[in-house]
Amino acid sequence: MTEASRITLATIAAEAGVSLATVSKVLNGRTDVAPATRSRLERALARHGYTRRVGKRRSEFIELVFHELEPSWSMEVIEGVEEVAHAAGLSVVLTVSGDRHTPGADWIDGVLRRRPVGVVLVFSDIAERLRDKLRAQRIPLVIVDPAGDPSPDVPSVGSANWSGGVMATRHLIDLGHRRIAAITGPDDMMCSLARVDGYRSAMTAAGLPVDPELIRFGDFHPDGGESAARELLALDERPTAIFAGSDLQALGVIAAASAAGLRVPDDLSVVGYDDIALARWMSPQLTTVHQPLRRMGEEAARLALRLADDATPDTLRMDLATHLVIRESTAPPRTGGSSSDATPRLAPTVRV
Amino acid sequence: MTEASRITLATIAAEAGVSLATVSKVLNGRTDVAPATRSRLERALARHGYTRRVGKRRSEFIELVFHELEPSWSMEVIEGVEEVAHAAGLSVVLTVSGDRHTPGADWIDGVLRRRPVGVVLVFSDIAERLRDKLRAQRIPLVIVDPAGDPSPDVPSVGSANWSGGVMATRHLIDLGHRRIAAITGPDDMMCSLARVDGYRSAMTAAGLPVDPELIRFGDFHPDGGESAARELLALDERPTAIFAGSDLQALGVIAAASAAGLRVPDDLSVVGYDDIALARWMSPQLTTVHQPLRRMGEEAARLALRLADDATPDTLRMDLATHLVIRESTAPPRTGGSSSDATPRLAPTVRV
Repeated sequence: MTEASRITLATIAAEAGVSLATVSKVLNGRTDVAPATRSRLERALARHGYTRRVGKRRSEFIELVFHELEPSWSMEVIEGVEEVAHAAGLSVVLTVSGDRHTPGADWIDGVLRRRPVGVVLVFSDIAERLRDKLRAQRIPLVIVDPAGDPSPDVPSVGSANWSGGVMATRHLIDLGHRRIAAITGPDDMMCSLARVDGYRSAMTAAGLPVDPELIRFGDFHPDGGESAARELLALDERPTAIFAGSDLQALGVIAAASAAGLRVPDDLSVVGYDDIALARWMSPQLTTVHQPLRRMGEEAARLALRLADDATPDTLRMDLATHLVIRESTAPPRTGGSSSDATPRLAPTVRV
Repeated sequence: MTEASRITLATIAAEAGVSLATVSKVLNGRTDVAPATRSRLERALARHGYTRRVGKRRSEFIELVFHELEPSWSMEVIEGVEEVAHAAGLSVVLTVSGDRHTPGADWIDGVLRRRPVGVVLVFSDIAERLRDKLRAQRIPLVIVDPAGDPSPDVPSVGSANWSGGVMATRHLIDLGHRRIAAITGPDDMMCSLARVDGYRSAMTAAGLPVDPELIRFGDFHPDGGESAARELLALDERPTAIFAGSDLQALGVIAAASAAGLRVPDDLSVVGYDDIALARWMSPQLTTVHQPLRRMGEEAARLALRLADDATPDTLRMDLATHLVIRESTAPPRTGGSSSDATPRLAPTVRV
């Protein structure tokens, strides 16, 4: 520890009215400090922007936290994080928090004990007081695809959700669809809002009306896609195409179409989102927006390692590009819809 | 430490020609012991069946090791292990070994350092010398669905693979199929062998010939299913039904059928294996053998915890039951096949 940091610590200890030994305990992740004392000290540390210089990494772990595990996309993020961790000689501690808004108090106690090199939090938020605890311990936190709207100083790796929404919708418009519905995720998740805003912008840019009845918020699971699609397909003037918020939702949409006697893509075009590994094995093979889930996991882990090494990354927030993958679940509409102008008859036969 | 165990340790130390301090180092997972010394001592410990009595659990971790992460089924096993670990106040350290035959040397060093409550190893084997190291440290090991043929003293949780193979094949025979193919996993994995033996027994019991040309070994991935099915469907006398070794393989089989202009189930019946969460969302919904993957993860974690508590489980090896789930991918054959006797025309309409 350098002379400078020793002085700083003594100053902070005096200011917080605690002993230097207590400061040391808190910084070393010991749990035998009264909560009120710890909290007073952590505030003082944060106030001074105290950053402890570490000679080497403090443990052998990266913490990876999901609010829930979902088939396919969770797996790809795990693979990305695990690969980077493994290459760095670190092990991954996996936690399922069960809460989209923040991991719990028992989780943070474990983290302070384990003192991981970094924390990667997936599709979830984190309570401000937990973030402060991590910051006081100099444990970097990186959020993958922030669900909420964290402050700009929270490092994050996302993907271009708005552009994805635009591309999916524009593809359907280019095929000749006019009555296009969008099913997205919960309305308090940033990625849901961005995708549906991309949909709105593409519709508006093409001079098409945005019918609120054709926009549904739900969850990203197959059941959510199925129930929303069932309602949409029962409308008097049903959509000829549905942009689903995830590939799993798209599976639910295809099931609802099948139950309604509609064939995909002949009677209904469906675009998914994510491009999970199984998307190209679905029947029909799914046209979808590719989100680089595995790379998002890799980049998040790398960013956490760089931050742990006190490196200054070029940017704390990055959105990886998305792109449209055209397979077999989209085609020109059979009926012209409300618009009777000539529709391009592109057969989307590109197989990726 | 009790007097008895102290005497035992001293005896073992003398026998192995090492100091008591070295014994202590090895038992405490320290890494600063020469490999040859450690190995000599571990053999002596194992020879005496030395088991250290622990007052309480030694760490806050369960180790979960996969040889690879696969969408869907890996996730369900992870969920099961994570849930039991979480309920016991433990964190899960996840490792992807990349080797179906054993995790590597760097992995065991990490484990000896972390001293987890237990190790759960999924769809993989483990080298004998690594098992000895775990045993010497009294870190229980439980294998989920052993790939190889471990000795009877290795605790394991599997499922009834042979019965699963019988049920899948009998279902196809009952529908009237005579020319039935089986695609399974690698021929050095116990689960692959058991399933295909179940297939053979069901064929033989029904008085049907077992044609070696209709049995293919491969891997459990969609690509493996696709390439095996492509060959099978190109045979002069093609099968009217295929029993696939996994749901992912079944997706590949359906893709190959589609590419050959065959409809499932009208022209080809397909049975999968696993019943992953997405099986009921496939088109057509997949008839498959349900393997309780999540429960296998739960039971393995519970067994590891019981062993860590020095409890004596009723059994060290358990196979959970499998059952057939009939959905939409199987139907009576349209052509009678080589056998011309009356075929039952059961419509498999049960939807689960």
